[in-house]
Amino acid sequence: MHDLPALLKKIDNYGVANPFPEAPRALYEPCSYILNLGGKRLRPALLLMATELFTDSIDRALPAAWAVELFHNFSLMHDDIMDAAPLRRGQPTVHTRWNTTTGILSGDVMLIHAYRHLASFQDAAVVAELVKVFNRVAIEVCEGQQYDINFETRNDVTLPEYIRMIELKTAVLLGGAMEMGAICAGASTADAEHLYHFGRLAGIAFQIQDDLLDTYGDPAKFGKQVGGDILQNKKTFLVLKALEIMPAENRSALETWLQTGPEAPGKVEAVRSIFDQNRIPELANAEKKQFQTEAFNHLEQVGVPVTRKAALRELITTLLDRDR
Amino acid sequence: MHDLPALLKKIDNYGVANPFPEAPRALYEPCSYILNLGGKRLRPALLLMATELFTDSIDRALPAAWAVELFHNFSLMHDDIMDAAPLRRGQPTVHTRWNTTTGILSGDVMLIHAYRHLASFQDAAVVAELVKVFNRVAIEVCEGQQYDINFETRNDVTLPEYIRMIELKTAVLLGGAMEMGAICAGASTADAEHLYHFGRLAGIAFQIQDDLLDTYGDPAKFGKQVGGDILQNKKTFLVLKALEIMPAENRSALETWLQTGPEAPGKVEAVRSIFDQNRIPELANAEKKQFQTEAFNHLEQVGVPVTRKAALRELITTLLDRDR
Repeated sequence: MHDLPALLKKIDNYGVANPFPEAPRALYEPCSYILNLGGKRLRPALLLMATELFTDSIDRALPAAWAVELFHNFSLMHDDIMDAAPLRRGQPTVHTRWNTTTGILSGDVMLIHAYRHLASFQDAAVVAELVKVFNRVAIEVCEGQQYDINFETRNDVTLPEYIRMIELKTAVLLGGAMEMGAICAGASTADAEHLYHFGRLAGIAFQIQDDLLDTYGDPAKFGKQVGGDILQNKKTFLVLKALEIMPAENRSALETWLQTGPEAPGKVEAVRSIFDQNRIPELANAEKKQFQTEAFNHLEQVGVPVTRKAALRELITTLLDRDR
Repeated sequence: MHDLPALLKKIDNYGVANPFPEAPRALYEPCSYILNLGGKRLRPALLLMATELFTDSIDRALPAAWAVELFHNFSLMHDDIMDAAPLRRGQPTVHTRWNTTTGILSGDVMLIHAYRHLASFQDAAVVAELVKVFNRVAIEVCEGQQYDINFETRNDVTLPEYIRMIELKTAVLLGGAMEMGAICAGASTADAEHLYHFGRLAGIAFQIQDDLLDTYGDPAKFGKQVGGDILQNKKTFLVLKALEIMPAENRSALETWLQTGPEAPGKVEAVRSIFDQNRIPELANAEKKQFQTEAFNHLEQVGVPVTRKAALRELITTLLDRDR
């Protein structure tokens, strides 16, 4: 079995051995740039770990792993334009460092190169299966991004709608990566589907955790400004849960804060205090745990010896137990 | 054999029978909008005609034909953002009618839906082959668009560079469509490749013709303002041919005009007169004919009876003989 650093090394080696074309430089330089901003390569690593549940020869899955990483970076490049984000991982976003045209076109070609890697498998049946899963997930990611955009201008978003949005926008790609890892290994459809749901449900748990960390994270460990979501009035799991469970007559303070700008004095502390009074972090944690449990139930049903699942179980557990 | 209206009817029926999902509406409405702006469906029609060279049962190729049409419209949607184009076929472009975010995201999902149609073939070998050709062509289209953008800020573009750019940006998609049509019919690799080159070379001839029509077209028949390329100082085949063949000491008048704005009085007539004095339209026509001849040489080598090729030969000839 390969540990995480060994997997990451394989992924990076594959990327180095399969670079973008040299020309046109203006098209491909931004692709290499975003890929080298220090992403954790979590999705391709999970894909390889899914493959390794079934077989020791995981190198065969590298083109699919790299395709998933390219897709993820394509979506970041385009999302950054849509969100007018100036920075990613502390560096200028592609459309900031170059321009919007570059961000669009380099993103487009990176998406198509993802399909090129998928199509590089010798076995046509594997290509067809991988492309089908990839299509389904990629379409859902775009749909999730659209719902996220829609939610910005809506004041009646419900918690189930939010969970469906994060499921589409981020969770299905984790699930799809693992399903593709299973396909590369020649696993049964049932096992591939269990891995899809394992990744999908864990992905929802990750997003709830992200929402928790943004408000309750340790500033020393959290990469971004703690409280950023509150300052920007983002409709996170915490806000929507609070609006869901609080009696109408108690909601006015929170609703008033949600109409203030980021400069309103004491905003983060005040909103956090409302969350605390309503036990929102506990409720969010409970819901996160529920998704986590459901996820692991699917992993349990994958038909390989439990020892083979240890690495995957441990990685997901560690990632989901990061400090509040 | 099906005539062109019959092919177009099949294509539209397939589109109607395979609509985008209903939701999210904000994502898919712009996709349907651009598809219904009155495009001629030339690429999917050529794909079906390529299939019909080999077999009477052309319906099997419809998913590939529709995928090519979706790809074409994806590229239009994103190109319109990059070109800041307000209108397409007299109607507001997607990013004008909605916004840039919509233009990016709806384009992205339309591209992925193109792959979804490709992946809908039962035979995995066909899926894998189609996806490979589609990837190669789609990457080249992006690269061509990048070269086109690069050329805007270069003053030393050569005619061979220009031809390579239009080959990538527009011609390979015609070639790829016909190659995919052959693949859908189970044609031999040699025949599929001849059809690729037939479409590619005809596509270059089309683009030279477009450049000619923009300057020399009949205003009553030409959809756009005749002389538009000259007014915008576009580096067309005509300009680059003139700069290539004129002795350095005679180029200054043309070079001076290329530095004026669209409001310079008498610009179109003056530049056209320089072209005429240097027999540029004749030279452009000769080069167009050369590509056309090379194209038809490839069609001749496709191993089916000559009677089966009549419809394709006639359509391309008619399209390439439009009035100057």
